[in-house]
Amino acid sequence: MTLIDGKAIAQQVRAEVRDEVAAWVAQGHEPPGLATVLVGDDAASAIYVGGKQKASNEVGIRPFDLRLPQDASHDEVRATIHELNANPAVNGILLQLPTPPQVDGPALTTEIDPRKDVDGLTPISTGLLSKGLPGLRPCTPSGCMELLRRHDVQLEGAEAVVVGRSDLVGKPISAMLLAANATVTTCHSRTRDLAEVCRRADVLIAAVGVPELIKGDWIKEGAVVIDVGMNRTPEKLAGDVEFDSAVERASLITPVPGGVGPMTIAMLLRNTLEAAKAAA
Amino acid sequence: MTLIDGKAIAQQVRAEVRDEVAAWVAQGHEPPGLATVLVGDDAASAIYVGGKQKASNEVGIRPFDLRLPQDASHDEVRATIHELNANPAVNGILLQLPTPPQVDGPALTTEIDPRKDVDGLTPISTGLLSKGLPGLRPCTPSGCMELLRRHDVQLEGAEAVVVGRSDLVGKPISAMLLAANATVTTCHSRTRDLAEVCRRADVLIAAVGVPELIKGDWIKEGAVVIDVGMNRTPEKLAGDVEFDSAVERASLITPVPGGVGPMTIAMLLRNTLEAAKAAA
Ligand SMILES: NC(=O)c1ccc[n+]([C@@H]2O[C@H](COP(=O)([O-])OP(=O)(O)OC[C@H]3O[C@@H](n4cnc5c(N)ncnc54)[C@H](O)[C@@H]3O)[C@@H](O)[C@H]2O)c1
Ligand SMILES: NC(=O)c1ccc[n+]([C@@H]2O[C@H](COP(=O)([O-])OP(=O)(O)OC[C@H]3O[C@@H](n4cnc5c(N)ncnc54)[C@H](O)[C@@H]3O)[C@@H](O)[C@H]2O)c1
Repeated sequence: MTLIDGKAIAQQVRAEVRDEVAAWVAQGHEPPGLATVLVGDDAASAIYVGGKQKASNEVGIRPFDLRLPQDASHDEVRATIHELNANPAVNGILLQLPTPPQVDGPALTTEIDPRKDVDGLTPISTGLLSKGLPGLRPCTPSGCMELLRRHDVQLEGAEAVVVGRSDLVGKPISAMLLAANATVTTCHSRTRDLAEVCRRADVLIAAVGVPELIKGDWIKEGAVVIDVGMNRTPEKLAGDVEFDSAVERASLITPVPGGVGPMTIAMLLRNTLEAAKAAA
Repeated sequence: MTLIDGKAIAQQVRAEVRDEVAAWVAQGHEPPGLATVLVGDDAASAIYVGGKQKASNEVGIRPFDLRLPQDASHDEVRATIHELNANPAVNGILLQLPTPPQVDGPALTTEIDPRKDVDGLTPISTGLLSKGLPGLRPCTPSGCMELLRRHDVQLEGAEAVVVGRSDLVGKPISAMLLAANATVTTCHSRTRDLAEVCRRADVLIAAVGVPELIKGDWIKEGAVVIDVGMNRTPEKLAGDVEFDSAVERASLITPVPGGVGPMTIAMLLRNTLEAAKAAA
């Protein structure tokens, strides 16, 4: 059994992005720009946004830090998004959710120019992914695919099972695995015999949000297991997979923490660079 | 075993649309309008377009029949699409493909206003389907779902297997079955043991384009089988399923012809009515 070291792979991706950004700037281009829009003063949101600013800086991406007051109107936030759409120095736009109640954050997300949708979560980006057309892909599922790629996991013809069908993780990763020529089964809370379906999987992706739902004996001998879950329990940060029993069966598995978690922001930086290159 | 009579169900849907259109007009609304755009003089395309005009007329939908010459430029066709987008009497727009080589038909399709995309095939419509947001859904997969609905097929928790992953049929029907709470497996030309995967299916959808690929003994006893295939062989119009052996196992099955085929245009008419209602 081999552990997938997401922390190391994320560092690698970030180092690659940093080098590519430097080369891009050396060719005479402006550095890629990533704008975060934070409405109000939610402490957790401020920490997320701060992390993205810092990560951008580290790879040479220029951060744009937009902050609107707690009582900003929907139209003010909308105007900010549209200004960023029009600003050629900005290649990626993130509207931090949730927004205060007077602002319809999800609706405003759809007004982000698809070419700057570095979260990859607007309907048009979702459609481009489904159709296999060029576009920006959501970061956490892209991170899972990158982990599989760096470990040369054979996806063509593999039976892949995705547990979870959220717009954020489950559905897009199903689409990506299908594009990689796996035979893909998507499961969810209404799936009848989840254990049996999981047992078919050569590649098992868990994106459920239920600590240790997936037991070791649900895992086919030699399967590759990607655990997207991040569930805070009284004792620890737990994945969706019962790690201690799963390691007995899996050939490759992500730990929690240190597996998928660090990949999200790395893929966000990569998306921003790709958006800058596409815009040039 | 019961045959699914797609011809009868399509007639029923068309009669319902006709009645709803009449009620809509009686309420003082303009009749829904469906525009077809035909570039050049391909005989087969002209027949398709004519069929849609006739079907529209029969249910009280106002047809707009736009014809451009074989040598029309890309920009001329584009201007036509934009005029139709702006015309409030037009609720649905169909650009007949293929277009002559100087016109990039697929690209122009994405310029159709998503609210008038009654084919449901633009990236944004695909994204709205994936996310379960309101939008226009593609007609053939909607027709399959309608057949299942009219026969009260239990989809929640069912194992659904879709063979085929085209943007036109396979992928959207997988998304629709997932939205109906089935556990969905999508198969394709790279699937390793297609027979085994099909044998799991409570509901099997074939959208492959290979005559009688799917054999009777690939079908689980009592399964529901929807055969989207329409394959012209020297002898007959064949489905993707070996019908004669499949009927021995299936509890419900569509014949070819007379199964899915007639549903597409019925769902197109329904989409046009829905688009008109949404626009009012
Ligand atoms: N590592 C990261 O960067 C990252 C990013 C996003 C989410 N996550 C984590 O991934 C997990 C899933 O997140 P999400 O946003 O997709 O969650 P979500 O709540 O939006 O979706 C959960 C999905 O799991 C399914 N589900 C729920 N209970 C189930 C059960 N008992 N059996 C089978 N399926 C069941 C639901 O049908 C749903 O589709 C969470 O733990 C979240 O914290 C991690
Ligand atoms: N009834 C209707 O109104 C209607 C509408 C559209 C299409 N169709 C018919 O449905 C069929 C499929 O159409 P389409 O547009 O989706 O076709 P397509 O050629 O675009 O896609 C076919 C799919 O089948 C898969 N496939 C091919 N060979 C396979 C094999 N040996 N094993 C497993 N999978 C295989 C491919 O991976 C591909 O995803 C055709 O017969 C078409 O005529 C009917």
